[in-house]
Amino acid sequence: MKSISLCVILWLVTASQIVAQPKFDKAEVKSWMKRVADWQIANPNKEAEHDDLDWTHAALYMGMIDWAELTEKEDADSSYYQWLLRIGRKNHFQVGKWMYHADFIAVGQSFIDLYRKYGEIKMIAPVMARANWVVDNLPETTLELDYSRMETLSRWSWCDALFMAPPVYAKLYAQTLDKKYLNFLNREYTATYDYLYDKEEQMFYRDRRYFDKREANGKKVFWGRGNGWVLGGLAEILQALPGDEPSRKFYQDLFVTLATRVAGLQSPDGYWHASLLDPESYPSPETSATGFIVYALAYGVNEGLLDKATFLPVVAKGWKALVDAVDADGKLGYVQPIGADPRKVTRDMTEVYGVGAFLMAGCQICRLAESAD
Amino acid sequence: MKSISLCVILWLVTASQIVAQPKFDKAEVKSWMKRVADWQIANPNKEAEHDDLDWTHAALYMGMIDWAELTEKEDADSSYYQWLLRIGRKNHFQVGKWMYHADFIAVGQSFIDLYRKYGEIKMIAPVMARANWVVDNLPETTLELDYSRMETLSRWSWCDALFMAPPVYAKLYAQTLDKKYLNFLNREYTATYDYLYDKEEQMFYRDRRYFDKREANGKKVFWGRGNGWVLGGLAEILQALPGDEPSRKFYQDLFVTLATRVAGLQSPDGYWHASLLDPESYPSPETSATGFIVYALAYGVNEGLLDKATFLPVVAKGWKALVDAVDADGKLGYVQPIGADPRKVTRDMTEVYGVGAFLMAGCQICRLAESAD
Amino acid sequence: MKSISLCVILWLVTASQIVAQPKFDKAEVKSWMKRVADWQIANPNKEAEHDDLDWTHAALYMGMIDWAELTEKEDADSSYYQWLLRIGRKNHFQVGKWMYHADFIAVGQSFIDLYRKYGEIKMIAPVMARANWVVDNLPETTLELDYSRMETLSRWSWCDALFMAPPVYAKLYAQTLDKKYLNFLNREYTATYDYLYDKEEQMFYRDRRYFDKREANGKKVFWGRGNGWVLGGLAEILQALPGDEPSRKFYQDLFVTLATRVAGLQSPDGYWHASLLDPESYPSPETSATGFIVYALAYGVNEGLLDKATFLPVVAKGWKALVDAVDADGKLGYVQPIGADPRKVTRDMTEVYGVGAFLMAGCQICRLAESAD
Repeated sequence: MKSISLCVILWLVTASQIVAQPKFDKAEVKSWMKRVADWQIANPNKEAEHDDLDWTHAALYMGMIDWAELTEKEDADSSYYQWLLRIGRKNHFQVGKWMYHADFIAVGQSFIDLYRKYGEIKMIAPVMARANWVVDNLPETTLELDYSRMETLSRWSWCDALFMAPPVYAKLYAQTLDKKYLNFLNREYTATYDYLYDKEEQMFYRDRRYFDKREANGKKVFWGRGNGWVLGGLAEILQALPGDEPSRKFYQDLFVTLATRVAGLQSPDGYWHASLLDPESYPSPETSATGFIVYALAYGVNEGLLDKATFLPVVAKGWKALVDAVDADGKLGYVQPIGADPRKVTRDMTEVYGVGAFLMAGCQICRLAESAD
Repeated sequence: MKSISLCVILWLVTASQIVAQPKFDKAEVKSWMKRVADWQIANPNKEAEHDDLDWTHAALYMGMIDWAELTEKEDADSSYYQWLLRIGRKNHFQVGKWMYHADFIAVGQSFIDLYRKYGEIKMIAPVMARANWVVDNLPETTLELDYSRMETLSRWSWCDALFMAPPVYAKLYAQTLDKKYLNFLNREYTATYDYLYDKEEQMFYRDRRYFDKREANGKKVFWGRGNGWVLGGLAEILQALPGDEPSRKFYQDLFVTLATRVAGLQSPDGYWHASLLDPESYPSPETSATGFIVYALAYGVNEGLLDKATFLPVVAKGWKALVDAVDADGKLGYVQPIGADPRKVTRDMTEVYGVGAFLMAGCQICRLAESAD
Repeated sequence: MKSISLCVILWLVTASQIVAQPKFDKAEVKSWMKRVADWQIANPNKEAEHDDLDWTHAALYMGMIDWAELTEKEDADSSYYQWLLRIGRKNHFQVGKWMYHADFIAVGQSFIDLYRKYGEIKMIAPVMARANWVVDNLPETTLELDYSRMETLSRWSWCDALFMAPPVYAKLYAQTLDKKYLNFLNREYTATYDYLYDKEEQMFYRDRRYFDKREANGKKVFWGRGNGWVLGGLAEILQALPGDEPSRKFYQDLFVTLATRVAGLQSPDGYWHASLLDPESYPSPETSATGFIVYALAYGVNEGLLDKATFLPVVAKGWKALVDAVDADGKLGYVQPIGADPRKVTRDMTEVYGVGAFLMAGCQICRLAESAD
């Protein structure tokens, strides 16, 4: 395992020697972000199945919250917060319908953020009521995901769930200091980690159906956006947990290990692809995986968790790739759709969670730009 | 007050002397019910604003639950239960989005009933989680309803609310024996009673905006469906509360008083109208008010709370009026729409809550038919 | 073990080939049940030691509750419910006197059922108060039963206890959704299972005193009624627990294993005898063991847990044996008395728990009769 890590680092070091330490132009970054955010607001997803409170929008709101904070502070533009508030109020800041499914509580992450800013109980009450039910009535099902037995989605039995739900509990713990949220977070996260994490390859399987599958090239199957979900979720957990909370160590160590591993799998074109170990079988750019990974790596550099000299070039290449996928009118392309064949991701394809990832990444790039000044 | 009651009773006695003790043909009653239920199922309300989990449907489901129980028991027809289960499952048995608004928890009444029958935790978990939040984080707003300050709807500040929410807490108390539900029910119900009940006229104002209004004939403004909501809600509370629960007395006494008062306001055509004290200004038949009132009166007779000789003729006349409003194809007409001008209720107007009331009434009429055998 | 199972299955297959798939005449079954129930009511057990609230009567009431439900529904005869209510009221729906002894809470099972039907708090309050005390003040004694140290009966240290107490906690959990009852049930049941269940023979020892004893034929000692208690108790637990409660799996798996094992030990005369592995040393018919086993097997077939073709012939033979033990006047004979020498069970011997088992079995036979139509 050591030798694998070493290889990765050596490769990165080499890369960073060739490419001079990159710099970001913050104004330019923000201009791309604005274009992408505004296009998304002007072109809402009206699909009934993925409504305002679904996980797809949860990821969008997380990017919008970051962007709203930035623009309000720097440009005195509170219109993005207003957009979030309108959606929140229209939906009474509710979470989704399924009591235990991670996807249905994800939207609560942003509503907790809104509560922290605006201080109205109604913003946090629904997600807190839901979380209270869950921690007081623990889900007891197996982690063996089986779509014909939907109750197997009542725990975090697929890796995307680690982006959707855990930060909710981390935030509620930091907010209330009630350990019941922390205990639940740690218990459930560890269970999923034990089940889905491949210690040899240092990545997460999407779910148990992939344990024994192999790609065309014989490699194990590790999904790009899936590991992006996990990395992004870890960045959220680390931002949420109190700084002196001892449980941080587990999440931080995992974050560094996974970030290091995934950084080494970036393709020469700057993207991460749908399959991390067989990019040739899945050659399409994939901006949702790339967005979440760039977000997490940039966050890690900003926080001093990841070595700047090593990771900054990766981040820079990733950001450039993301920007390349943006249309003239601000539409982010190459987003792998939900459940579609990952081989066929096209420039035309967009999805709200891709935009969320783009904005989350952009905000961390802005921080990098500042620190480089 | 004494003299008013006396008048009412005299009038009723007179009425019962003229009309010979009525009998109901159960098969015929059920045939009307089936027609109305089937028409509604075939013609769902697809208005986005009033979705599956709204109060309008909550009232429909309550009628359908009664009808489902009857048809499964007597006709081995479980299709109405299946219809309810499909809606429940599709919505994960959720309640509405607003944490404190009575309208948004109303649908939980039927989901508790489904749990009692089918015993799946997922059926009762959402309404219980919601109620737990409410009783653990009491709504603290005023009862002075003000639609420009929507938080004033967080308590039962309008009389319809007494149909929507209180039976939920009565049922959860009977289910769990946890006094927190009972205490909340009693505290909040009494507060609304003290605020909206006119002791002189023995009826409920719709909300505080009507305290000082007067009808064209100079009388106070008491809304037909509004007092129907209260009466129907009282019947639900009485059915839900344990038989030896001392709090019953308050609800039972109020039920008898209100039922007696409202029964005396039936129009000669058998209907109750939008305005109880000025039917001439609102001459249209109004089947939602009539449905809930007939339901409550018939329940009261069945339970021995209301004198049979006195009230049966009122019930019979009311049921006949309801049936007269049913089209050949089973569509129930003359239902006063939501918030529309009550003067213009037409045969063409229908609404799901009217159908709910019709089915609830019908089931009590069937019980009357049996006891008369 | 493999070979034993195989023998059993072969025997069953043979039996099912000889006896054509049996049919039950529901009217005849009900006529036997009525005779037995009425005889019991007319001939109450007046023994002071086993009073109204003792475990012996608890088993009787469970059969009577099933019978009361059937006769009220099908024959509009509520006299059996009235009989139960009279006993309940006379005793203020109390449970027995010993705080922790399983036998003393058994009667609470029927009182919870009466609460579900009649909704008077006083019916459920005593059993709930007792259970609350137990789960809040856990019994901490050993499972090593020792009649000279009566506190060793404070936990489920003998297999009969698994019929008496666990269904109480399963019912209270389903009623209140309070996990404290479920956690207690699971913890204590598992402890007794680990202690008294013989994994090789797939049956329960009566208590630890039998671990090393052997029958005359050298076989281990497994008591017929004792394993009947466990099987019947499992059927009660499965009926009580919510359908989507994950803990069901343990009880269901155990039920199927134990039912399969015990079914294979039926004697050619249709009875199970006092000693399951040495019927020759205990040749008397034993209708209490037989009653509980027939009840459980028929329940398993009705619920689709046990294969119909395999188990129906066993059930049919068992039911015939039970009926053969009924006198012309309705007295059920061949019930092994409490603590008497099991070798001498005679036609003259009866006991209320035998009647309870007979009625429970009969109700499941009626369900079989319906499904066969």
